Amino acid sequence: MDPQRLRALLARVAAGEVTVAEAAESLRHLPYEDIEIAHIDHHRTLRKGFPEVIFGEGKSAGQVAAIMARMVEQEKVVLVTRLAADKAAPLTARWPEAVYHPDPRLLVWRRSPPAIVGRGTILILAAGTSDLAVAQEAALTAEAMGNRVETVVDVGVAGIHRLLAYRERIMAAAVLVVAAGMEGALPSVVAGMVERPVIAVPTSVGYGTSLGGLAALLAMLNSCASNVAVVNIDNGFGAAYMASAINRPYPQTND
Amino acid sequence: MDPQRLRALLARVAAGEVTVAEAAESLRHLPYEDIEIAHIDHHRTLRKGFPEVIFGEGKSAGQVAAIMARMVEQEKVVLVTRLAADKAAPLTARWPEAVYHPDPRLLVWRRSPPAIVGRGTILILAAGTSDLAVAQEAALTAEAMGNRVETVVDVGVAGIHRLLAYRERIMAAAVLVVAAGMEGALPSVVAGMVERPVIAVPTSVGYGTSLGGLAALLAMLNSCASNVAVVNIDNGFGAAYMASAINRPYPQTND
Amino acid sequence: MDPQRLRALLARVAAGEVTVAEAAESLRHLPYEDIEIAHIDHHRTLRKGFPEVIFGEGKSAGQVAAIMARMVEQEKVVLVTRLAADKAAPLTARWPEAVYHPDPRLLVWRRSPPAIVGRGTILILAAGTSDLAVAQEAALTAEAMGNRVETVVDVGVAGIHRLLAYRERIMAAAVLVVAAGMEGALPSVVAGMVERPVIAVPTSVGYGTSLGGLAALLAMLNSCASNVAVVNIDNGFGAAYMASAINRPYPQTND
Amino acid sequence: MDPQRLRALLARVAAGEVTVAEAAESLRHLPYEDIEIAHIDHHRTLRKGFPEVIFGEGKSAGQVAAIMARMVEQEKVVLVTRLAADKAAPLTARWPEAVYHPDPRLLVWRRSPPAIVGRGTILILAAGTSDLAVAQEAALTAEAMGNRVETVVDVGVAGIHRLLAYRERIMAAAVLVVAAGMEGALPSVVAGMVERPVIAVPTSVGYGTSLGGLAALLAMLNSCASNVAVVNIDNGFGAAYMASAINRPYPQTND
Amino acid sequence: MDPQRLRALLARVAAGEVTVAEAAESLRHLPYEDIEIAHIDHHRTLRKGFPEVIFGEGKSAGQVAAIMARMVEQEKVVLVTRLAADKAAPLTARWPEAVYHPDPRLLVWRRSPPAIVGRGTILILAAGTSDLAVAQEAALTAEAMGNRVETVVDVGVAGIHRLLAYRERIMAAAVLVVAAGMEGALPSVVAGMVERPVIAVPTSVGYGTSLGGLAALLAMLNSCASNVAVVNIDNGFGAAYMASAINRPYPQTND
Amino acid sequence: MDPQRLRALLARVAAGEVTVAEAAESLRHLPYEDIEIAHIDHHRTLRKGFPEVIFGEGKSAGQVAAIMARMVEQEKVVLVTRLAADKAAPLTARWPEAVYHPDPRLLVWRRSPPAIVGRGTILILAAGTSDLAVAQEAALTAEAMGNRVETVVDVGVAGIHRLLAYRERIMAAAVLVVAAGMEGALPSVVAGMVERPVIAVPTSVGYGTSLGGLAALLAMLNSCASNVAVVNIDNGFGAAYMASAINRPYPQTND
Amino acid sequence: MDPQRLRALLARVAAGEVTVAEAAESLRHLPYEDIEIAHIDHHRTLRKGFPEVIFGEGKSAGQVAAIMARMVEQEKVVLVTRLAADKAAPLTARWPEAVYHPDPRLLVWRRSPPAIVGRGTILILAAGTSDLAVAQEAALTAEAMGNRVETVVDVGVAGIHRLLAYRERIMAAAVLVVAAGMEGALPSVVAGMVERPVIAVPTSVGYGTSLGGLAALLAMLNSCASNVAVVNIDNGFGAAYMASAINRPYPQTND
Amino acid sequence: MDPQRLRALLARVAAGEVTVAEAAESLRHLPYEDIEIAHIDHHRTLRKGFPEVIFGEGKSAGQVAAIMARMVEQEKVVLVTRLAADKAAPLTARWPEAVYHPDPRLLVWRRSPPAIVGRGTILILAAGTSDLAVAQEAALTAEAMGNRVETVVDVGVAGIHRLLAYRERIMAAAVLVVAAGMEGALPSVVAGMVERPVIAVPTSVGYGTSLGGLAALLAMLNSCASNVAVVNIDNGFGAAYMASAINRPYPQTND
Repeated sequence: MDPQRLRALLARVAAGEVTVAEAAESLRHLPYEDIEIAHIDHHRTLRKGFPEVIFGEGKSAGQVAAIMARMVEQEKVVLVTRLAADKAAPLTARWPEAVYHPDPRLLVWRRSPPAIVGRGTILILAAGTSDLAVAQEAALTAEAMGNRVETVVDVGVAGIHRLLAYRERIMAAAVLVVAAGMEGALPSVVAGMVERPVIAVPTSVGYGTSLGGLAALLAMLNSCASNVAVVNIDNGFGAAYMASAINRPYPQTND
Repeated sequence: MDPQRLRALLARVAAGEVTVAEAAESLRHLPYEDIEIAHIDHHRTLRKGFPEVIFGEGKSAGQVAAIMARMVEQEKVVLVTRLAADKAAPLTARWPEAVYHPDPRLLVWRRSPPAIVGRGTILILAAGTSDLAVAQEAALTAEAMGNRVETVVDVGVAGIHRLLAYRERIMAAAVLVVAAGMEGALPSVVAGMVERPVIAVPTSVGYGTSLGGLAALLAMLNSCASNVAVVNIDNGFGAAYMASAINRPYPQTND
Repeated sequence: MDPQRLRALLARVAAGEVTVAEAAESLRHLPYEDIEIAHIDHHRTLRKGFPEVIFGEGKSAGQVAAIMARMVEQEKVVLVTRLAADKAAPLTARWPEAVYHPDPRLLVWRRSPPAIVGRGTILILAAGTSDLAVAQEAALTAEAMGNRVETVVDVGVAGIHRLLAYRERIMAAAVLVVAAGMEGALPSVVAGMVERPVIAVPTSVGYGTSLGGLAALLAMLNSCASNVAVVNIDNGFGAAYMASAINRPYPQTND
Repeated sequence: MDPQRLRALLARVAAGEVTVAEAAESLRHLPYEDIEIAHIDHHRTLRKGFPEVIFGEGKSAGQVAAIMARMVEQEKVVLVTRLAADKAAPLTARWPEAVYHPDPRLLVWRRSPPAIVGRGTILILAAGTSDLAVAQEAALTAEAMGNRVETVVDVGVAGIHRLLAYRERIMAAAVLVVAAGMEGALPSVVAGMVERPVIAVPTSVGYGTSLGGLAALLAMLNSCASNVAVVNIDNGFGAAYMASAINRPYPQTND
Repeated sequence: MDPQRLRALLARVAAGEVTVAEAAESLRHLPYEDIEIAHIDHHRTLRKGFPEVIFGEGKSAGQVAAIMARMVEQEKVVLVTRLAADKAAPLTARWPEAVYHPDPRLLVWRRSPPAIVGRGTILILAAGTSDLAVAQEAALTAEAMGNRVETVVDVGVAGIHRLLAYRERIMAAAVLVVAAGMEGALPSVVAGMVERPVIAVPTSVGYGTSLGGLAALLAMLNSCASNVAVVNIDNGFGAAYMASAINRPYPQTND
Repeated sequence: MDPQRLRALLARVAAGEVTVAEAAESLRHLPYEDIEIAHIDHHRTLRKGFPEVIFGEGKSAGQVAAIMARMVEQEKVVLVTRLAADKAAPLTARWPEAVYHPDPRLLVWRRSPPAIVGRGTILILAAGTSDLAVAQEAALTAEAMGNRVETVVDVGVAGIHRLLAYRERIMAAAVLVVAAGMEGALPSVVAGMVERPVIAVPTSVGYGTSLGGLAALLAMLNSCASNVAVVNIDNGFGAAYMASAINRPYPQTND
Repeated sequence: MDPQRLRALLARVAAGEVTVAEAAESLRHLPYEDIEIAHIDHHRTLRKGFPEVIFGEGKSAGQVAAIMARMVEQEKVVLVTRLAADKAAPLTARWPEAVYHPDPRLLVWRRSPPAIVGRGTILILAAGTSDLAVAQEAALTAEAMGNRVETVVDVGVAGIHRLLAYRERIMAAAVLVVAAGMEGALPSVVAGMVERPVIAVPTSVGYGTSLGGLAALLAMLNSCASNVAVVNIDNGFGAAYMASAINRPYPQTND
Repeated sequence: MDPQRLRALLARVAAGEVTVAEAAESLRHLPYEDIEIAHIDHHRTLRKGFPEVIFGEGKSAGQVAAIMARMVEQEKVVLVTRLAADKAAPLTARWPEAVYHPDPRLLVWRRSPPAIVGRGTILILAAGTSDLAVAQEAALTAEAMGNRVETVVDVGVAGIHRLLAYRERIMAAAVLVVAAGMEGALPSVVAGMVERPVIAVPTSVGYGTSLGGLAALLAMLNSCASNVAVVNIDNGFGAAYMASAINRPYPQTND
């Protein structure tokens, strides 16, 4: 990011020559930062309401650190997803305010607790205890993005009364994230109970014909309930990101 | 089948030289009938409790007729599955007591109404109206094999209250056959409600990622309820055959 | 549905003995209607904000008509999806106010034009002219559900300037539905431009390795933009239904 | 579970105010126990005749222990399936009466030897020595559920005389569980010999085109014998559970 | 083929200047014939012992006729496989000695009945009557290539006694071709009975999870009997061609 | 395209105020034409050296005609790929200079014969006569794009001498397009003979395990020769387009 | 095996009461040996000409040793395939005459060098050096079964001259085993050169779209040469077993 | 290679008895070198313009060293691809001028820096930082083959402005190699911007439905831009080899 250009713009804002709305709009088109191994998209926060997120898989600890160093200077929150524990250690050593969650392999750094911007509660349901890591990734992401979050675990369809006992919380949620492995039936049942949107997350919990989560994925894509859309297998992060986008006020100004 | 051998055996039974049980046992090993295009397994009724069933697909009308002609001489009931309507016409013309069911493409010929031999009711549940043909194939087969049958259609998981309304009939059944396409979630929910065995039948109802029923099949194989086993896609016949085997008294003599 | 019970309830509402909110809540638990071939879920409108939708595939014209007859008595709008033209003819003859759209194979019956209930515009983007039928299914569904809808066709990624020319309309939309076949790349590019949620619809447009839309589906599930969730192949209906759920005010009362 | 409610109920039973049947029925609807990481389904024993089974994969040793601690208070038998040896060690240390079987990775805890409730023998056949672990999982499960069990190993179809030598035991069994990897042909041959139901278990024994057991699974789903239904790959537990459900007396009271 | 070069060579053979063996060897390297739409490989007979075979699928009737016209001038036998009936009609009209077999869609033209060159009998076994067309393609091909052929149909593994009744003929064969659809188990059982080579042909008979013959193919590739090798689905022609290559005397001169 | 803007620009070029290079550059950014059902990308010719090509599948005859009408006004050549014969008829009636090729289902309209701009010959090799339609699509496309083209058909690897006979023409070509179905081995063998780039086109010729061309595709992607890259199944058009891009002079000005 | 029965039979042979042929025939039906974890098929040598082979995968070292102990008493040669090195160590310690080959993971024990019983040479061709382990498994197996074996490695199709240089040895072989990974094209080219049968072995050499050998497998199943049949991926053992069956004299007595 | 034959040839060239062109042509047919485990194709440099490349996977360090020893005597450059670090160590010890690149697992040995023979720049684009290793393999290969190379990383389609910022370099390149994992959309967007050929490399970056790179592969094969062809997953080497073949002058003499 070009600080000079930014300063000049802000000076004109201060002088009343440019309105805030105009400045915000033009800042959406600021350039990225090229650090050779990456092009950091600093204005993503302006354009999309949340900064770029670092995908930890396939990057060395050094590469993650280099990208993160630039981001902590600019952003209020930095997430690193799918980060192996051994790569996380040097990062939490360098940035003590960063917290690493080993089960969902998620690192969260933030300058301050996030303000709540979401309209309602995002309810995260997980079919089984083995889906917990995915549910946690979703919950931590949704919280980092400024949402109220509740999580209910182990309410799979083979004991439907456990699910029905949560009927009120289910019907009160603004958006629902439903994670399930094996036959992936939970999103269909939940979506049949509510009119609010349901984000279905297939998990790789299972074996044999679960095909690493493909069975659950296919089930969810074929849901006979229609207020359902699906994200990638084990993608708790993406489900929460999408749920957060849904939960944001629209139009922004009057909510 | 060798009638002479059969007659001699029966004479010895009549004379008290051979008990009925011994005769029945030895008849289990009678040869088949070779009609060049097929080896008709006439003693299947003795060995398995129900005669061979003719798979109509890939056979010409003439081939089916040739096999059927031999079977109607020997058996009390003959089923032809997956029989196209144009192949069925000459058969119903030749054997007026044969009934052809066009939706499940099933032809049933029988000498007399089947006696009830099953211990309890086989309950057939279909998730949607589009699964009706598969449910009918199952119901007709189970009836032909001597079972009491009930069918409930359109009780999919997206409106779980419709299913729960049938709780009593579901809990009373001896065996359950559950047909579902799309996400194939119904067997899991049903099996979670009962202790009796559930035969799950995936159907090819759906499109796109239903992959001709594979999505439902995978869901059923991954059911988190354990009193579930699965048959081939659209195989209402096989599900009913299996349910009937389960529903038979065991040991045979004291039921 | 039990009209007596309904009348009694309404009388008590009229008499001030029951508030409207209490009545609406209790109506959520009214039973369905059993017409043997189907269990019509009449209170789905109350529970989910939109009546049950008839899936036309695998049902005979007679079955669709039987279900539809009960629904037109109760509902303000009835949709039949994936309905072949020859099955549609008797329906439009019987219900002249029903309109059949041959390309998306969608029949829409409604008592009166739908009131707009959505918060903003649902923008439907289709990558190519061949994706038009899916886009139309989405547009007609979203309109029937009470949303303002705009459609832009043939803005695929191989000529990115065509897409960028619509930047303003894209950024103004409340929800975006993006349909694409072949490589299915359009949702990623669009979602990278906005903070609002994007529903991606893979289409079966393509040949060979498009695998009937699976290539596009996989691309969309792996989108490097995170405000994306995916529905079944060619499921324009489901995408619009989900978009409409997102576009609804929440909480209902103060929007 | 609410002990007070239970005690009150039992007191009324004792006083003759409530019959045993009524009490059993009402107990079926007792709530589950919420321990945050799981919703333990304590009344599953009442509803389904066997307690919930803990799926060990994807749970930490601590999570399994927490769930198990509550279950040993309530149940007569607890099974943990797919449990890695290192997670089993602390469990067998804490509950010395628990036995861990390393090959099938199954932990069995029980208060007392199970009473036999099955009507006949469950015969478990394994095609090869490499299928032994799956056969053991089935045998241990079926025994824990109160069945007489026999196991015969290494009777694959490439030496059909080995199988035929067991003809009598095969024909005497009440239910058959048949495990096979590679081409998965054994269930077809066995089912052709008997009228009793056969549960087929594909195993992941093989390499290359066995595709981790998919080849055997597909073979079993396409069995030309019809008294066959199939469970997930390597799911010896599920096969035995299903076999046990079949083997239970029905109706319960007069067997 | 260049007739002049051929005549000169033969003249030198006649004059004793070239031995027969030398001439045969050199003829192996004669060029092909280029007719623009095809390069007819006339010396394939010399090199491989049987002329090129015309693959009928994807060629117009005119293209087949053009290729065939050149071949009937040079060869003793011409086969056209996978030829639709409407393309066969003009060919049998033009070459009355050509016979078209509609079930296997195979056209056979030959100058004279083939001499028997095979060492023993090729036995063709088909699991079901629906596999008959594939068995016929194999039988006709093997006969055209100079083998004694026997065919036995409908001896599937669900009635193993039918198969065992043919034990002697099975053990006497020089090569076995075994066709089966559905679970494709027959080749394993047969190969376990003999030491001679078995060519397994998966057929597309079946539905649902037969996946057009893939289930049978996978089963055969995973056969636990090792004297089995596999050809493409429905490839009765290729199986017979391979069987014929096996059945040929070797070394050629002293058989 | 805006003709006024174009005229003004050309006037400035004529007046020497703008150089040709500057004008060409600015024309690259002219807008597209919006005709509601499509956004016609008129400046593609400037940007990419060849106009947009109409994909005929999934478009009605009317839609194709509407797009084509605008293009013939602007372009020198228009291609419509994958166009069914019945949709082609009204187009050739309206534009008599358009030629429809039924086997490759390709329509070619052009104002005048294309000038040769390619550096060398594009050699198209097809493994079998059944691959001819794909080879023709490639040849017609490459010719329309200004290349010298030669085609050799039926030189599959099972008679390698036929291929080796073309060694000189193979080694002389500037770019090679190699189409093959079934095992798809031809590109590997050809690429091993030359240093020039080879574009491999898998075709859907084959049956059973050819999986509609996937077998050939996979073979080509795994080629042990490295001067090979692959296009979609049956995509003769794309292969020729890519070959033409390779065959163009670079840098443009000095060739 | 029952030695008494065997001795009695041999005594009768010695006394001339039973011919050798009769004795051999009756010995084919001797029973197997049941050692609980396995049913050792001792008369397989009589029935199939070679003893049972132990599949090492999925068996513990102890299980392999138990089976092997019985076999070395009865057989002249024992093979253990797919045996991990750590399981082989105790076996070679116990039976010093056993040789373990680490690359093909094959253990060979034999009493004495095998006599040559094959009619001609089995030629094993491997496309690349990385296919060597599979080629070695084939070579060792074929030698153990009494065949003359030659091996040629690294003659892939991308340098076809390397292959053609071996034309004479290729044309002289009685049976050919051709192993190839990646695109799996070598069997097609080789089979086009000879009239003798070719056993194709796909290997898992490759990455990405080689899909663990599936690409090569599919190529081989679609070979445009017809004297090819295919075995499982990496199944050098099976290929050699099949080649050996082909190479055996037939009829046995007069070769 | 036979040095005597080479010397004799060169002597005749020196004496003017043979022209350079004739000598070069004849050298194309020199034999390979047989070192038992491999047939080293020494004249590949003459035939294809670059020596054989050693595929490191599946070969022992000793095998690689043996092949490499012969090649360093003859060639100017030797590449070993997919070489594990532990196998590389002894090679770099023995040939100190060899450089091992651990991320792309590529070893490069060369006698001297490569001369630039390519016509223009090969531009390598990678969608994300995680694709860096594949991009490096491509860059190192293209450089070793005598091309000018530029690399730009982390310009994925979810932030399209980052890509558009490189428009000039993209439009200036002679050939483009575009690597992307996940949805694999980048090649379509890039190819839509240029007329030069684009080689698309799918990478295995991603998880779940990325299916190890298959999602990206399918997307690239279905690109709606036509100047794209595709190589195997993670095959940066092959992409660069193909790009280099394209970038070479043609005809060779006058560029």
